[in-house]
Amino acid sequence: MRVLVVGAGGVGSAAAGIAARRSFFSAFVIADYSLDRAARAASADPRFVAERVDASSAGNISELCRKHAITHVLNAVDPRFVMPVFEGALAAGASYLDMAMSLSHPHPTEPYRLTGEKLGDAQFALASSWAEAGLLALVGIGVEPGLSDIFARYAADHLFSRIDEVGIRDGGNLVVEGYDFAPSFSVWTTIEECLNPPVIWENGEWRSTVPLSEPEIFDFPGGIGPVECVHVEHEEVLLIPRWVDAGKVTFKYGLGSEFIEVLRTLHKLGLDSTAPVRVGGVSVSPRDVVAAVLPDPATLGDKMTGTTCAGTLVRGLGVDGSPREVYLYHLVDNEWSMREYGAQAVVWQTAVNPIVALELLATGVWQGAGVLGPEALDPVPFLDKLVEYGAPWQIREGAA
Amino acid sequence: MRVLVVGAGGVGSAAAGIAARRSFFSAFVIADYSLDRAARAASADPRFVAERVDASSAGNISELCRKHAITHVLNAVDPRFVMPVFEGALAAGASYLDMAMSLSHPHPTEPYRLTGEKLGDAQFALASSWAEAGLLALVGIGVEPGLSDIFARYAADHLFSRIDEVGIRDGGNLVVEGYDFAPSFSVWTTIEECLNPPVIWENGEWRSTVPLSEPEIFDFPGGIGPVECVHVEHEEVLLIPRWVDAGKVTFKYGLGSEFIEVLRTLHKLGLDSTAPVRVGGVSVSPRDVVAAVLPDPATLGDKMTGTTCAGTLVRGLGVDGSPREVYLYHLVDNEWSMREYGAQAVVWQTAVNPIVALELLATGVWQGAGVLGPEALDPVPFLDKLVEYGAPWQIREGAA
Repeated sequence: MRVLVVGAGGVGSAAAGIAARRSFFSAFVIADYSLDRAARAASADPRFVAERVDASSAGNISELCRKHAITHVLNAVDPRFVMPVFEGALAAGASYLDMAMSLSHPHPTEPYRLTGEKLGDAQFALASSWAEAGLLALVGIGVEPGLSDIFARYAADHLFSRIDEVGIRDGGNLVVEGYDFAPSFSVWTTIEECLNPPVIWENGEWRSTVPLSEPEIFDFPGGIGPVECVHVEHEEVLLIPRWVDAGKVTFKYGLGSEFIEVLRTLHKLGLDSTAPVRVGGVSVSPRDVVAAVLPDPATLGDKMTGTTCAGTLVRGLGVDGSPREVYLYHLVDNEWSMREYGAQAVVWQTAVNPIVALELLATGVWQGAGVLGPEALDPVPFLDKLVEYGAPWQIREGAA
Repeated sequence: MRVLVVGAGGVGSAAAGIAARRSFFSAFVIADYSLDRAARAASADPRFVAERVDASSAGNISELCRKHAITHVLNAVDPRFVMPVFEGALAAGASYLDMAMSLSHPHPTEPYRLTGEKLGDAQFALASSWAEAGLLALVGIGVEPGLSDIFARYAADHLFSRIDEVGIRDGGNLVVEGYDFAPSFSVWTTIEECLNPPVIWENGEWRSTVPLSEPEIFDFPGGIGPVECVHVEHEEVLLIPRWVDAGKVTFKYGLGSEFIEVLRTLHKLGLDSTAPVRVGGVSVSPRDVVAAVLPDPATLGDKMTGTTCAGTLVRGLGVDGSPREVYLYHLVDNEWSMREYGAQAVVWQTAVNPIVALELLATGVWQGAGVLGPEALDPVPFLDKLVEYGAPWQIREGAA
């Protein structure tokens, strides 16, 4: 296996740090728009090579694949560049993995009731090209989407005879010392995902709803406790129903009451907008200004304490036919991930999954062609390998 | 009386519209940085003259006073320009009126406990120069400060034998149609006054406290009903104790829960800051960006409905020595002020008071020298004249 990682930001660098401890590949190229940044990530291992790449150019991606005879491209850049990386890999005859899918566009007239172009639609539209080429595009193989989808498939295969609802629930108690308000992730991207119309799968179809709606308090394990969760647009809702039979699929993000209120206020005032406004003699995007006044989360890992939890709540009938509810989950403590890998907890938790997936593909344990979600493949070897990587997962039986 | 109005914004223009129906002056000059804007305001009456002025230059103000043999300067510009207009009037031998006092500066080390330079301190420092010149600077003679101070003096003179507390309470139910969030006043100035440390007079001294603190629900008259009010820095707290004997003086602004939450959020994120930040290739002040994304309140008068209430709550012992509590207040309905004067309710309610005061000074009913607050003068003729202007005031007996 010859791997090209596109993007040497937080997740790309953490993925490199994890791969540095494995031996399933014969080449590992790390490319970024900034060669310096690629070189810093590549310094984790003498086997790694750094390259410069423009992820907005499918031609540039193909060229780099051919130069290094790449067999697998791992896309670790901003979701705005999913399509050129995805198309560039296909054109070069390489398989492809990503952790976020092609972007959605709201329904033009009824955005909070009907779906428009959904997350990943642009990728699934090319599924037959991938299948015909005998290549695999394994989409959404981070932690959420990714591990959360694998949990859903595991529940369907081994724990339930009927699934009424799959509800992804993500939350944590990470705090950054010394700041009144410092999100532990990019506020620009969080605004993007939190203010898009969320999608719900129910009664055999997708529908959309109002951003940040249906707040519920979910009691997270690992000492995190109760956190306010709301509907957010996320890939699992689009992936799980394609391979797992479930009456309903939702994603609720444990943003917490304070962050939800901040997002609502930014939206109400129009400060979430990316459209430039005139201010004095200059023109700026209000959302860029919001990002500029907040501390850069990439620099906050060592000021952060707490634990992050990603997981999948499943309700239905157990294998014996009696009502059952379980929460399958994965915890990462920030102090541990900083000490072991120099990576922030959420970033590390995202990055470990595509490396596990690459290893399963390299060894032939996982095989496939076309555009597949993580729930299309056997979850057991993945969950076993995760334990081997030092990142065990857990099950909580019963209601939260 | 020969009047110079400095500033032809909302309040200056409304003041001109009110003066146009009176005959107590022999000259009425309206000056603005924009001659066009001055000319628009001056078009209300053929007796009016428009001029261009730079309010940041005391010399420019003096020059204009001398050119038109001005006897009284009415300052209707942004409080940042109080000192040059105040000094320019004094230098030219003209009396002076304003509706907001010179700006405060928080205590350098204990801003939420001790006062620094207080509102109006810079003006009171020059009191002896005004007194020696035999000129009057009547400061804070809008609605709040202004009418609210006059209510306090009226209560002391006619309703109470002992005053335990004077609490200014300002609120309304103005809403702007067609907007999720549209403040009925400048958000830039509101941030300025709401996020400065508020001042409280108690036990014979001034102290400061935390912005937006001690929320209380005050039940406003005029169909407005209960509104959440919080401590805000305001001139009355600095003026009233100089002339009215009161155990405690506070100002609480009925911003309402939603607006209070917006201000808290802007502050938490640092979006209230006036210090420029780098965004992409440009440099902008976050507070200017907030103002730029919201609709301009000056353009919203005809989309607004509702009533604004300014008033003074007084607690103590009545003239008969028994416990008494009254709320003296003044209501303006936006539909009425738009129809009668083409001015938004809050703007009109501010502008009518200095015109009434000018008329009392022109007719010799009010007289004085030095730097005086409205509560230094007899409240009865003012309150009678307000009724004559079609703007009656009211008293509510008992607790809210």
